[in-house]
Amino acid sequence: MTMPASLTPRGERMRETLLNTALTLFATHGYHETTMRDIAAAAGCSPGLTYRYFNSKEDLVLALYERLATEFEAHVATLPRMPLAERFQRIMLLRFRQVEPYRKIYQAILGSALSPQNELGVLGEQTQELRAAAQHLFVQVAQGASDAPNAAQVLEVGQVLYAAHMCLVLFWLYDETPGYRATYELLELAYDGLRIGRPLLLVPPAAHALARLSRALTPVFGRI
Amino acid sequence: MTMPASLTPRGERMRETLLNTALTLFATHGYHETTMRDIAAAAGCSPGLTYRYFNSKEDLVLALYERLATEFEAHVATLPRMPLAERFQRIMLLRFRQVEPYRKIYQAILGSALSPQNELGVLGEQTQELRAAAQHLFVQVAQGASDAPNAAQVLEVGQVLYAAHMCLVLFWLYDETPGYRATYELLELAYDGLRIGRPLLLVPPAAHALARLSRALTPVFGRI
Repeated sequence: MTMPASLTPRGERMRETLLNTALTLFATHGYHETTMRDIAAAAGCSPGLTYRYFNSKEDLVLALYERLATEFEAHVATLPRMPLAERFQRIMLLRFRQVEPYRKIYQAILGSALSPQNELGVLGEQTQELRAAAQHLFVQVAQGASDAPNAAQVLEVGQVLYAAHMCLVLFWLYDETPGYRATYELLELAYDGLRIGRPLLLVPPAAHALARLSRALTPVFGRI
Repeated sequence: MTMPASLTPRGERMRETLLNTALTLFATHGYHETTMRDIAAAAGCSPGLTYRYFNSKEDLVLALYERLATEFEAHVATLPRMPLAERFQRIMLLRFRQVEPYRKIYQAILGSALSPQNELGVLGEQTQELRAAAQHLFVQVAQGASDAPNAAQVLEVGQVLYAAHMCLVLFWLYDETPGYRATYELLELAYDGLRIGRPLLLVPPAAHALARLSRALTPVFGRI
């Protein structure tokens, strides 16, 4: 990510303008159909100057990820102290509302985002920091629950919820049912599963299964 | 898929030669780095003739899918009558052994294979038949179990196992642990889950949850 170390307020505004222009063009003309030159022209910025802010379209997508991550962090911070199942459901509803305007962009870049050979992919090298931050937010979802599990289990639950969140978003990108009915049905099932599963974490075999699941997910999703 | 309606034995052999040559080149030089012209040259076939068998590299990948599907079908047919958990574990072990030689090819095409806008994608229009056949194989995995559930539940279990299989293969493509340890840990967890979950299907709330899960998955993975 080539984020200029420090920008003047005017530079900051230009960067925002370029990002907003890019997102509008991606949404209306398509991600693959939009060139850096189109973005520069629509933002009234010279191509040369544009490249000082963003090296590539991938860089713009990373900037979108970062913006969404900051917003999402604020959402998590405002979650009331409720049972774990409710906190997860509520944060996922907020998540879907947040990414819905970018659904077409996500679908367009999903191929490269999911390619294991792409450093900028969701599980790639260059997105590691964003990923670690997102994992930590799901730890917070568990930690702030009125029925929060113990310190070790909070990390394990965070890892599992983070992975579940990735699967739900992936599913949603394929879901063409009206109002994303199928995705919300899965989310309801996750809610029921967490409601029933939470008390079971006091029972050693279930606690052991959670630990195993979290450990198995770690090499792919990253250490918490 | 442009599969010639009928090929002479000689044509059949040429098609096999082209496919094998392509797979070797994909594995050694990389999928994206190999052109149709390279494949033709390596197979000692004129480019013009090559295009009579395969329109594109995507067509070759579809032919690989088909070959693997036929092999996999034979594997399922030879599964002994065992408990459901064991049948699923065994078929997944066979699956991983089967696709391992093509891991790099799968990784290279994963991006386009998972793009929701790609008709040739794993969940796209043109692969619908192959997908329906694969779903049916997982119904067979459940149906042939010594503890097979009832007729309605067999379809639901088949749908869930099919989706689980897709997730496990996706996870495996990212798994860089030695010997795919993380993937096998997940598979062990799936085994334990099925062993414990199977008797629960007699209990109405669990039966209801299975029905809901299967229904939610259907719009994305396809009707069984």
